[in-house]
Amino acid sequence: MSFKILKRDKQSSARTGILKTIHGDIRTPVFMPVGTLGTVKTTTPNELKELGADIILGNTYHLYLRPGDKEIKKLGGLHNFINWDRPILTDSGGYQVFSLAKNIRPIICSTGHIRPKNLVKITPDGVHFQSHLDGSRHFFTPEKVVDIQRNLGSDIMMVLDECTSYPCSKKYAIEAMNRTHNWAEKAIEHFHKTVGARRAVPKKSLLFGIVQGSTFKDLRQKSAKFISSLPFDGIAIGGVSVGEGKKEMYKVLDWTIPHIRPTGPIRPIYLMGVGTPEDLLEAVERGVDMFDCVLPTRLARHGTVWYYEKTGGKLNLLNSSNKSYSGPIMKDCQCYACKNGFSRAYIHHLLKENEVLGIRLTTLHNLHFLLDLMRQIRDNIDKGTFLKFKKEFLKNWKI
Amino acid sequence: MSFKILKRDKQSSARTGILKTIHGDIRTPVFMPVGTLGTVKTTTPNELKELGADIILGNTYHLYLRPGDKEIKKLGGLHNFINWDRPILTDSGGYQVFSLAKNIRPIICSTGHIRPKNLVKITPDGVHFQSHLDGSRHFFTPEKVVDIQRNLGSDIMMVLDECTSYPCSKKYAIEAMNRTHNWAEKAIEHFHKTVGARRAVPKKSLLFGIVQGSTFKDLRQKSAKFISSLPFDGIAIGGVSVGEGKKEMYKVLDWTIPHIRPTGPIRPIYLMGVGTPEDLLEAVERGVDMFDCVLPTRLARHGTVWYYEKTGGKLNLLNSSNKSYSGPIMKDCQCYACKNGFSRAYIHHLLKENEVLGIRLTTLHNLHFLLDLMRQIRDNIDKGTFLKFKKEFLKNWKI
Repeated sequence: MSFKILKRDKQSSARTGILKTIHGDIRTPVFMPVGTLGTVKTTTPNELKELGADIILGNTYHLYLRPGDKEIKKLGGLHNFINWDRPILTDSGGYQVFSLAKNIRPIICSTGHIRPKNLVKITPDGVHFQSHLDGSRHFFTPEKVVDIQRNLGSDIMMVLDECTSYPCSKKYAIEAMNRTHNWAEKAIEHFHKTVGARRAVPKKSLLFGIVQGSTFKDLRQKSAKFISSLPFDGIAIGGVSVGEGKKEMYKVLDWTIPHIRPTGPIRPIYLMGVGTPEDLLEAVERGVDMFDCVLPTRLARHGTVWYYEKTGGKLNLLNSSNKSYSGPIMKDCQCYACKNGFSRAYIHHLLKENEVLGIRLTTLHNLHFLLDLMRQIRDNIDKGTFLKFKKEFLKNWKI
Repeated sequence: MSFKILKRDKQSSARTGILKTIHGDIRTPVFMPVGTLGTVKTTTPNELKELGADIILGNTYHLYLRPGDKEIKKLGGLHNFINWDRPILTDSGGYQVFSLAKNIRPIICSTGHIRPKNLVKITPDGVHFQSHLDGSRHFFTPEKVVDIQRNLGSDIMMVLDECTSYPCSKKYAIEAMNRTHNWAEKAIEHFHKTVGARRAVPKKSLLFGIVQGSTFKDLRQKSAKFISSLPFDGIAIGGVSVGEGKKEMYKVLDWTIPHIRPTGPIRPIYLMGVGTPEDLLEAVERGVDMFDCVLPTRLARHGTVWYYEKTGGKLNLLNSSNKSYSGPIMKDCQCYACKNGFSRAYIHHLLKENEVLGIRLTTLHNLHFLLDLMRQIRDNIDKGTFLKFKKEFLKNWKI
């Protein structure tokens, strides 16, 4: 029983809880900053702790390719390698295989032959793909992906799934879902077989299953029922935020979550790849406990920050309107940049000049904004005022 | 009397001292990290303080072009703009005008005409140049350069000088030196005329003169005598480290420093643009009090770090020999990276992947290495063991 509900909102499905891992407790609902290559871009582990990050995410696909899961295992596991002693969730690599690996540029061989573009081949056993880095060939199976995550020493592992793009035919959505279900069974079997089988990896890792089904109501319901019938430690909702639009995404949540079986111990629900403030609020209302997204760090690298004063939304600090603006990004913000008097004008200058400090400051601000929003969400659930808080927030929030 | 000698080495010209500015005291000999565009690349002001930086340098040429000295003045001066409340030295822009501006790429106009490459024109009054950013035309005079630095609010200002490249004919070296001397007189006159004339700028800025003379003994002696006969607050040695080789540079110091007139209060001697560990030691021995150099930050951005265990020197962390090296950059180092257990293997991985954290860690390490070396130099001068320390250090140091 790694997950415990602390408080349920009476007017919605929102809830607060604690997810226990051997590297510490995670307060839910939680936002998990993404550290694709073993670093949440531009930040140190200390900074992440100061921001109040309970857990970060690592990408199995990327770390497997470079520096390699075996290399990381030799160096004491991912926690030791990256100097992070709090929990780490690693994804399954599925999403990357089906997105990044697809986009290898066609290569004209010395013989004049053109190598086809899409070299992802799906079989019942797993997926063949080529590295987006060097074109080298690899094969991911549900079992291998568990092994890789064991090498990394993840606290929370994800099963290999087949993430469909949007839009997607129902026929393909069914095939992909069935493979995802089949792989989920294989993964969980392999996971239990290998618990404690390797030294120097946590014996008490958690394994999460992933619901798929694209934007088809009956498939989402079916997938939710199937995946939640398996003894996973958590249930993830995958294949969203792939271009289907917000309304469609919220519908997917409405179809899926009620069909996650409440049999056995309560399990956390994790909405993969979602991270705008408005989406977090909508999803928490529908019962989601966990989130991850590259958005705060990616926006920051492009000079865009979230703010909320009288109204809120996104702001691009590269805009010339900030050139002479002596105030902070956001009044009363407690992030390192705002609290210490770095002006929009200075950050504008740094970003214009491609100075690293610029994206360091915007990254710290955006991560703080989102982690602070999650804190406020949790506080308001605990106080029974979540829906009021949500309404107030969204009233003056520009999407 | 802004400068006070605390201790003189009995066996050499090395000395420790305190240079007072309105933003605080500087312990000499001092190394000043370079913050070209108002940021010491990749670092925050807090990190610089933790590293023990007493003073940083800003580049007049760059800040004048972008965001502009008037813009910075409007935003409360450079200290306020960049959030640094300790002393700032700004150079005169002379070096950049004569190096960067020279290197504008030739432009083929719509008429088919090719714009000549070198558009730096020197007149008795100053220097015409084009921005390396957009080709816009500018004119620096000794007076204007003082005004710009007043707008920035520098604690220590440098006079406009003409920095010759290496090698350089004696004829040109004489001409450039004479202009430099003439400009020095104009600058100091303008400086004293404008003390306190503008609001919101420190009334007690210091002004340093610059000795030139290329690699000609008689010119260096003449320039040293002339510049030090003027009532500057400090004497800088310019035009070194421009490709003349170490031996030649040490000779320039030997020729110059004894001819800096000891009339009036003792003044600090500043060797511009020098920053390898071996050069710092050699120059301190010869009586230099102040240094600046982009080397620690620039090397760091290319993955190169200084280390000293049994032997010392440079190390490129991008080399594959570091791929599986689980130890720190340098044993017993107290920098953020080494102290907190970031391994060479992890930094190697970060650098390979162009992750910002990689160059953040190498930058912190290199700055710490150099600032710590200066601390050791000061301690050893105070204890009377400087030459012994220098010999020991250089014995196993690979250049």
